[in-house]
Amino acid sequence: MAIRIGIMGYGNLGRGVEYAVDACEDMELAAVFTRRDPASLSIRKTGVPVVSVDKMDAWKDKIDVLILCGGSATDLPEQTPKYAKDFNVIDSFDTHARIPEHFAAVDASAKAGGKVAIISVGWDPGLFSLNRAYASAILPNGKDYTFWGRGVSQGHSDAIRRIEGVKNAKQYTVPVEAALEAVRSGKNPSLTTREKHTRECFVVAEEGADKARIEKEIKTMPNYFADYDTTVHFIDEKEFNEKHGGLAHGGFVIRSGATGEKTAHKHVVEFSLKLDSNPEFTASVLVAYARAAYRIAGEGGKGAKTVLDIPPAYLSPKTGEELRSSLL
Amino acid sequence: MAIRIGIMGYGNLGRGVEYAVDACEDMELAAVFTRRDPASLSIRKTGVPVVSVDKMDAWKDKIDVLILCGGSATDLPEQTPKYAKDFNVIDSFDTHARIPEHFAAVDASAKAGGKVAIISVGWDPGLFSLNRAYASAILPNGKDYTFWGRGVSQGHSDAIRRIEGVKNAKQYTVPVEAALEAVRSGKNPSLTTREKHTRECFVVAEEGADKARIEKEIKTMPNYFADYDTTVHFIDEKEFNEKHGGLAHGGFVIRSGATGEKTAHKHVVEFSLKLDSNPEFTASVLVAYARAAYRIAGEGGKGAKTVLDIPPAYLSPKTGEELRSSLL
Repeated sequence: MAIRIGIMGYGNLGRGVEYAVDACEDMELAAVFTRRDPASLSIRKTGVPVVSVDKMDAWKDKIDVLILCGGSATDLPEQTPKYAKDFNVIDSFDTHARIPEHFAAVDASAKAGGKVAIISVGWDPGLFSLNRAYASAILPNGKDYTFWGRGVSQGHSDAIRRIEGVKNAKQYTVPVEAALEAVRSGKNPSLTTREKHTRECFVVAEEGADKARIEKEIKTMPNYFADYDTTVHFIDEKEFNEKHGGLAHGGFVIRSGATGEKTAHKHVVEFSLKLDSNPEFTASVLVAYARAAYRIAGEGGKGAKTVLDIPPAYLSPKTGEELRSSLL
Repeated sequence: MAIRIGIMGYGNLGRGVEYAVDACEDMELAAVFTRRDPASLSIRKTGVPVVSVDKMDAWKDKIDVLILCGGSATDLPEQTPKYAKDFNVIDSFDTHARIPEHFAAVDASAKAGGKVAIISVGWDPGLFSLNRAYASAILPNGKDYTFWGRGVSQGHSDAIRRIEGVKNAKQYTVPVEAALEAVRSGKNPSLTTREKHTRECFVVAEEGADKARIEKEIKTMPNYFADYDTTVHFIDEKEFNEKHGGLAHGGFVIRSGATGEKTAHKHVVEFSLKLDSNPEFTASVLVAYARAAYRIAGEGGKGAKTVLDIPPAYLSPKTGEELRSSLL
């Protein structure tokens, strides 16, 4: 029988999960849950029920894994502990500093309900965390570097849009090639924030707006832009819609370390992603971990887990035997 | 108390394990076992016992994990099942086609003895396998590519040395940059053996040897060289010793896949290694998995496992809490 997946929240990420479930022969989309009026929500896959969150109780035995597709600011801190009581759940909680408290809240709830919850799944946190963990365990004498981009930062784009006179904006985080090369060379450089990434902004200004003021407000904005070399391009709405509609992203995790006599031998371990669609790729990671949650639940596991706790084989639809003969 | 490590076999890999154990605060080297006369073996770390394999019975309770550092052709198929009865063991068995039978033999033995055995640990099989497993589970619509090099192939170097008139030889496997770029572009190219790698050989000929014949014998050697574009450089012994004494290696695992409406969004997941010393890095991977074996044994686990079965957190000396707050 196919693994029955529920989606909670049907934004970019939820739609990505729908596509990712379609790509898996061992899964089926059982329902989409929404806080909106279900009649107002048109989902891609016809025939799949759209259900109000008020009626989730009736679905407890009809969903094997519920994938929570809300945001980390307000949705997930409330939803994941709440639903982990009654469902095996997956979330993509990505506020790094608050992961320990989120883990504790979800763990208590999942254990009380006898369910499995895998939190902070995606690529960072997620695949990047895995690579930091593997590489640092293997090369204890070494240093980790994470670079993001080139890609769209939703938070930074939003921050620009809040400036008076800005009609629309998109911000790209760009890793500095020279810094990447210095890290790859094994030199273990010390890099400031400014040396690692630049920020490139494409802005549509309201008619008659003071562009010089907007540019200055962007470049001096604390936390978001002040510590970076920032470039601002003013473009018209047509160009904005044609060229800046995508949600591409990516990045690099590099560990450089040394072994042997006088630690003379250098080693560089690099993991990188180049993604046309951040939400669709993140959704694909969530769905692979939904398979793991289903298996762990089947073995009687309970409580909160992260990607660091999950054996890689649990993500694959293949058996251990198939994996050993085909890709070990 | 520190994890007590035993090394079986003190060649390049065994010496690498000695260095890697030194780099781990939670481990200590308890003994080195050898088939040679222990008195003839001089190990780097003074004070550590060198013990004949005939006397291993006395060490059953004094070693937490035994790391088997022999070769895959004849040593490990015999040693791993033999020692998995009495010790938790790690090996780097790397004959891909024979992994299923090796796994079965080791599993039966480890289960009979109530021990844990992690086989085929290293980078390929090992870290490359992990990356193939993760990326293929996440992007089911996609294709895997593995490239090796630039690095020394011991087997190919040996094959050249068996040719009459060859005094010494080193063979480098070199990935073709254009093929790497085609894969990274997301085009999912079909690549022949010849299109993926070239082979570069540095040969010291015996005095008066027929170099043209040697070159022809290398380039036409079935399995080893005939399917590749091979370059042969004859050099003198001085240059050989100065420039070709290293054991550098590395490689790339790339999965390119697609998601979304009409699978229009492409994603590229890439993992790469650039290693100054293949045996020292492989040893570092073995030692991290020795930590995992120790933990799994402590939890009552038994039988054969591979890297695909091990939760990443088990490789790290940090607690789950530390990992979640520091690198998730």
